Amino acid sequence: MRIAVVGGLAAGPAAAAEAKRQAPDAEVVMFEEGRHVSIGTCEIPYYIAGHLGGADALVVNTAEKLERSRGFEVRLRERVTALDARAGRLVVDALDYGAQREERFDRVILATGARARRLGVPGEDAAGVFVIRDLEDAQAVRLWLETESVRHVVVAGGGYIGVEMAEAVRDRGLQATILDPSGRVLNNTVACEASDLMDRAVAAAGVAVRAEKPTEILADRAGRVRAVRTDAGELVGCQMVVVSIGVEPRTELAVAAGARVGEMGGLAVDDRMKTSLANVWACGDVAEVPRAPDGRRVLWPLAPTGRRSARVAARNAASRGGRADTFRPIAGGVAVKAFGIEVGSVGLSLAQAADAGLDAVAADVRHWTRTAAFPGSCPIDVRLVVERGAGRLLGGQIVSAEGAALRADVLVPLVQAGATARELAEDLDLVYNPPVAPAVDPLKVAASVAVRRAGR
Amino acid sequence: MRIAVVGGLAAGPAAAAEAKRQAPDAEVVMFEEGRHVSIGTCEIPYYIAGHLGGADALVVNTAEKLERSRGFEVRLRERVTALDARAGRLVVDALDYGAQREERFDRVILATGARARRLGVPGEDAAGVFVIRDLEDAQAVRLWLETESVRHVVVAGGGYIGVEMAEAVRDRGLQATILDPSGRVLNNTVACEASDLMDRAVAAAGVAVRAEKPTEILADRAGRVRAVRTDAGELVGCQMVVVSIGVEPRTELAVAAGARVGEMGGLAVDDRMKTSLANVWACGDVAEVPRAPDGRRVLWPLAPTGRRSARVAARNAASRGGRADTFRPIAGGVAVKAFGIEVGSVGLSLAQAADAGLDAVAADVRHWTRTAAFPGSCPIDVRLVVERGAGRLLGGQIVSAEGAALRADVLVPLVQAGATARELAEDLDLVYNPPVAPAVDPLKVAASVAVRRAGR
Repeated sequence: MRIAVVGGLAAGPAAAAEAKRQAPDAEVVMFEEGRHVSIGTCEIPYYIAGHLGGADALVVNTAEKLERSRGFEVRLRERVTALDARAGRLVVDALDYGAQREERFDRVILATGARARRLGVPGEDAAGVFVIRDLEDAQAVRLWLETESVRHVVVAGGGYIGVEMAEAVRDRGLQATILDPSGRVLNNTVACEASDLMDRAVAAAGVAVRAEKPTEILADRAGRVRAVRTDAGELVGCQMVVVSIGVEPRTELAVAAGARVGEMGGLAVDDRMKTSLANVWACGDVAEVPRAPDGRRVLWPLAPTGRRSARVAARNAASRGGRADTFRPIAGGVAVKAFGIEVGSVGLSLAQAADAGLDAVAADVRHWTRTAAFPGSCPIDVRLVVERGAGRLLGGQIVSAEGAALRADVLVPLVQAGATARELAEDLDLVYNPPVAPAVDPLKVAASVAVRRAGR
Repeated sequence: MRIAVVGGLAAGPAAAAEAKRQAPDAEVVMFEEGRHVSIGTCEIPYYIAGHLGGADALVVNTAEKLERSRGFEVRLRERVTALDARAGRLVVDALDYGAQREERFDRVILATGARARRLGVPGEDAAGVFVIRDLEDAQAVRLWLETESVRHVVVAGGGYIGVEMAEAVRDRGLQATILDPSGRVLNNTVACEASDLMDRAVAAAGVAVRAEKPTEILADRAGRVRAVRTDAGELVGCQMVVVSIGVEPRTELAVAAGARVGEMGGLAVDDRMKTSLANVWACGDVAEVPRAPDGRRVLWPLAPTGRRSARVAARNAASRGGRADTFRPIAGGVAVKAFGIEVGSVGLSLAQAADAGLDAVAADVRHWTRTAAFPGSCPIDVRLVVERGAGRLLGGQIVSAEGAALRADVLVPLVQAGATARELAEDLDLVYNPPVAPAVDPLKVAASVAVRRAGR
């Protein structure tokens, strides 16, 4: 059995390794068009800030190490340009040689990932305008910061990468301005619907957040970025621009092969991560996955989900009809820490719940991370989103200088299992000790409010 | 309907408030033999260390505030000395007046709590020998430290209170020696079976831990403690002794009334916290509660469990035959932080699992609290205890300078629900972001090892 894995950054290596584990006698080949595999994308802002040393800190695994330790073959700088699922045929371009050839495989796993969204405005190709996606981007940004006289950086998009990049810029002693149409940071994926702690920390760090978006990028005669024009007609002078307005799944290969695309634009897969094409599975950022609270299939381009979908795709792809694995819907957990504030978010925000047609209410509390009088105790904002009536936990958002991300983790099994606010409020034995948590944990305080607000 | 609550320190006020909430027209009377109600026992070591200000920091609620805000009656300095369950009669001593009288109640909730165990060795009544249990103890210790020239404190018992008291003593600039037969700290309730991080932190702080126990306490002519003799024949000079060798349930009142006692010596109750006596419920430290992994009824004298059992006891006691509440078995979570190290523990240790007749194995890993290269990342030791075969999670122990207690909280719903190591390893979406958690959370790393060790 020959298994092809297309894409080698995060989900790809996980899928190839799992396929080889599942079917040790299979020949597993992973194609990656770039020069590197297995990159720690989440670490890029900290590498740029200078906290992690050289670029090798971003390399989780090399092709050589994977081949040696996992037993699959890695083809670097080879791009799969066409797929004939029924015939089991791939067309492969060897980029460094300009050569094209065909290969045959019994099973194909697509892990083509996502690309950073572009602004789509004039001037976007100016030197000094970057997206934050792969190792080359990371190195290019650092080189720019170290060789150009950058004083002010405009960050387009206030999501987690935008906030992390603003912090990285600040940590390098430079000025940053975030442009986000919402006028806030972390307004979408990492919902901070009910807390202003992060916004205040960003402001206190001297980072401006403007409710504007770029409409044009202006460069000097040498083609270097010098300003961003916004939809408010303002000109914001800068010597670098980071575009962090999200990612989009790289579905072209699969779509050209006839694969079905889901509502969110990612590849549609079943609960075994199988695409609509015969013998083709998909995993990682390119595939849509179901989320637990409402079953909706969404794009959730984060590493833990990618690894999980890779495992399921690979086990089924490598299975000879035996036990197959199914994908358990995601809790949708995500965490950010920047400017001394942690945000943890799980499941649906109130806005997302409404959008999903659920009758939801929110319970908001501000409590303490430890016994209130204990030295170091910090305010913590908790919002729980619950279904009216039964009080099923649909999501939670937690913001504090400490203990927010791990409290999101506490909610993960509850949201994933469809537990109720009452179970959290009344039955769950969260620990109490003055230096680590107050007598009644903020999660339980919020859950008690949620029980009342859910109304039964 | 008249409802009596006997005991007013922690579970008592919670039970009285819940009973009044459940049956607003009932007359609810809470008896407390001391001068205070609603004390924050867990805060005592930090009060003694001087971190919380005056003794009022230990008072969670006053009798007046409870009466006003919760609508029940509080009788301070009144001791219930006899109970006739069938007749609904209590004998009450008004301690400040030397008067005794009878009162009639329809329902009784026992929240008589636990008392600190004594050493039972000669000389134990010397001045300067303390237990850490109530507000008076706390004040007496602080007065002793502030008026006597104490240089060295012997702490008998290396459980969580022992460790916290050793830290408090160190924080006051004094020397402490812990005597514990195991030669370690946190050897029992808060199991550190597979980690020496806490032991090393204790040693690094200059606190000696000796595998000995006191056999005699020696005093000077004025009756002040001057040394402890140990079972190794050693004399340890000191000017204060803290006895922290656990607590025992105060069952006398109930036992004299004919109540059944469980295997652990606490009051036996059903899943509605009902004792074997008609119209008598029990809650808090005096009652045995079932633990989730094996259903065994145990004493678990911690505030969160006390509040939970109080709620169930009160709802059932105050119910007029309507919906009653049942007690969900405990996860058995506990956390300590001292000397810069956090320990979180949930469910059964390997020793406890063996003792419970379960076929258990342990998976031990040392990992990182954040991305390894990230500044501030700390080593973290995780032990998971799982059932052989199915891999059901029976318990977990986590030790680190950060993020151990809240990771114990993550295990709580899993242990309480009987989840498997495989679910934790493969399906649970714990968050990942370099400043707050590594790519694969230490809990998931340990769970993967546990899946293999469980063997299937």
